[in-house]
Amino acid sequence: MTFFRDRAAFDQALATLPAPDEGAMEAAANRQASLTKPAGSLGRLEDIALFMAGWQGRERPRADTIRVAVFAGNHGVAARGVSAFPPEVTAQMVANFRSGGAAINALAAACGAELVIVPIDLDRPTGDIAEGPAMTEPECLAAINAGAAVIQPGIDLLLLGEMGIANTTAAAALCAQVLGGEAGQWVGRGTGVDAAGIDRKAEAVRLALARHGAHCGDAFETLRRLGGREIAAIAGAVLAARLSRLPVMLDGFICGAAVAPLARDNPQITGHCLAAHCSAEAGHARLLDALGLEPLLRLNMRLGEASGAAVAAQIVRSALAAHGGMATFAEAAVASGR
Amino acid sequence: MTFFRDRAAFDQALATLPAPDEGAMEAAANRQASLTKPAGSLGRLEDIALFMAGWQGRERPRADTIRVAVFAGNHGVAARGVSAFPPEVTAQMVANFRSGGAAINALAAACGAELVIVPIDLDRPTGDIAEGPAMTEPECLAAINAGAAVIQPGIDLLLLGEMGIANTTAAAALCAQVLGGEAGQWVGRGTGVDAAGIDRKAEAVRLALARHGAHCGDAFETLRRLGGREIAAIAGAVLAARLSRLPVMLDGFICGAAVAPLARDNPQITGHCLAAHCSAEAGHARLLDALGLEPLLRLNMRLGEASGAAVAAQIVRSALAAHGGMATFAEAAVASGR
Repeated sequence: MTFFRDRAAFDQALATLPAPDEGAMEAAANRQASLTKPAGSLGRLEDIALFMAGWQGRERPRADTIRVAVFAGNHGVAARGVSAFPPEVTAQMVANFRSGGAAINALAAACGAELVIVPIDLDRPTGDIAEGPAMTEPECLAAINAGAAVIQPGIDLLLLGEMGIANTTAAAALCAQVLGGEAGQWVGRGTGVDAAGIDRKAEAVRLALARHGAHCGDAFETLRRLGGREIAAIAGAVLAARLSRLPVMLDGFICGAAVAPLARDNPQITGHCLAAHCSAEAGHARLLDALGLEPLLRLNMRLGEASGAAVAAQIVRSALAAHGGMATFAEAAVASGR
Repeated sequence: MTFFRDRAAFDQALATLPAPDEGAMEAAANRQASLTKPAGSLGRLEDIALFMAGWQGRERPRADTIRVAVFAGNHGVAARGVSAFPPEVTAQMVANFRSGGAAINALAAACGAELVIVPIDLDRPTGDIAEGPAMTEPECLAAINAGAAVIQPGIDLLLLGEMGIANTTAAAALCAQVLGGEAGQWVGRGTGVDAAGIDRKAEAVRLALARHGAHCGDAFETLRRLGGREIAAIAGAVLAARLSRLPVMLDGFICGAAVAPLARDNPQITGHCLAAHCSAEAGHARLLDALGLEPLLRLNMRLGEASGAAVAAQIVRSALAAHGGMATFAEAAVASGR
């Protein structure tokens, strides 16, 4: 399935984003006010219930069907020694996802979510961003459409995550390009690279920005030059989900970096997004701040694979269970506050 | 069942706390190191797995059987207008818990936990702490034993919570007594009291400390004079759970305040405790800091009823699912990092 026919279709979708259902949000807010608890006492859980009501268009939103999509891609920049792991690990971990042995398998099962693994051309790493564009235009469009393809009717919440050795380097380049600041502010330890590796990451980001910086005029071009296949896929999934008013949970630093170019072109793109967590990766807190997203969790996780999203999805489940399942003051014959 | 025969038995138990199983923790740490993820990349989830391993004495700890205990009590100090709700609401909410309409019913169901409701002498409010002790010695011991009675074999994790109109005032008095500082630093909005109500809370705390401060020589006496039945029950449950090496999740401000007198007598008491969340209540962050507990969640909740604990329990479930369910590098044929 080709969701975005061409680059112009992607641009146009990003320019004309649908809004949430205000009527459903108001109905949900009225329901909240009648439930047997002090007003506002469930804090962020109440915000989540209204968010989900708005995007699902329901007074009592659901999180029965949760899909986790994990995109995988390989990166030419890996040859610069920017990761603690060799590039073969991307494919090995995809095999691990498929045989059920990875963290996301256990965490998706724990939150009752369906797991979809989408490796994209692992045998064809992207170009080294320090030397040229990551992808051609057809390659980038194909990756974006691979992301969009995970959206289907009947999903209540979509969790996005990724796997790709060296992809924190691409993500750092995207952040530095879109949000500014020194390369060194955006590179971190990733999977656990040492100090020399961090220096190599920063140098790769500097070279990439020097080469591509003047040519990243819009989201598509920025993703094409500095991103990667799994990163473009995440961007495609986020945009396609929005067109279906499907709420999305972003996992970590890479997911946020994939959204950053979209948000520069249209800041409203994060409206249907929840940020699962603030990871241990150096630039993540700053990235979330720039995107206007307040993370649900701060557990010092830094694995990717949608692992943080699968943990945070349970908070959404809890929020909707309380919102949908509680009695009202009238039903329970409880005196309300003065 | 009388768990603590008398006050001396309580004191002795607190003085001689069992330690976690170091061998099980080491076995769990070795397992963690072999799993298909970068070392440490699951962050706090890894800490939780080791914590649970130590207290359960298992390399692969479980969270299959989770019990939520919600204790309820009434407070003489409520007559001073320190709450936004009338005291009848304590019993009304207990009825709501029993008929399944409260937040904790929905949240306990969402995390697959069994819910036990323990109202303690709701028809006999404690004495007004501003005028005299909250409880007699037999009353306090009975409340402590009501808490201890929720511990049974076969429970993997115990979540503690409470309901009691005016109990944030008693909790603030406990914190001010044990941890020092002005009354005004420990009183907050509770269920949503207004500024005048907060002033009345602070005044009640000042009167209580002036009356009882010199006589709160140990944990039991502090709980007896300044606490409440549900608060003493929480303290009893925490101590009895420790004797069975049963890990405990504390809900919010009241639960922390119940533990504070125990921690003054023996700081090791928090060793088997997780703090579910940092609530919106004014003094909670400072209280958790004093107890040396890092909360799992910061969702601006302030409901009580173990509501935050029921949300945070899902993080424990996730942590143990990953720890117990993931493949090792050898099993999955994935290259480990350099």
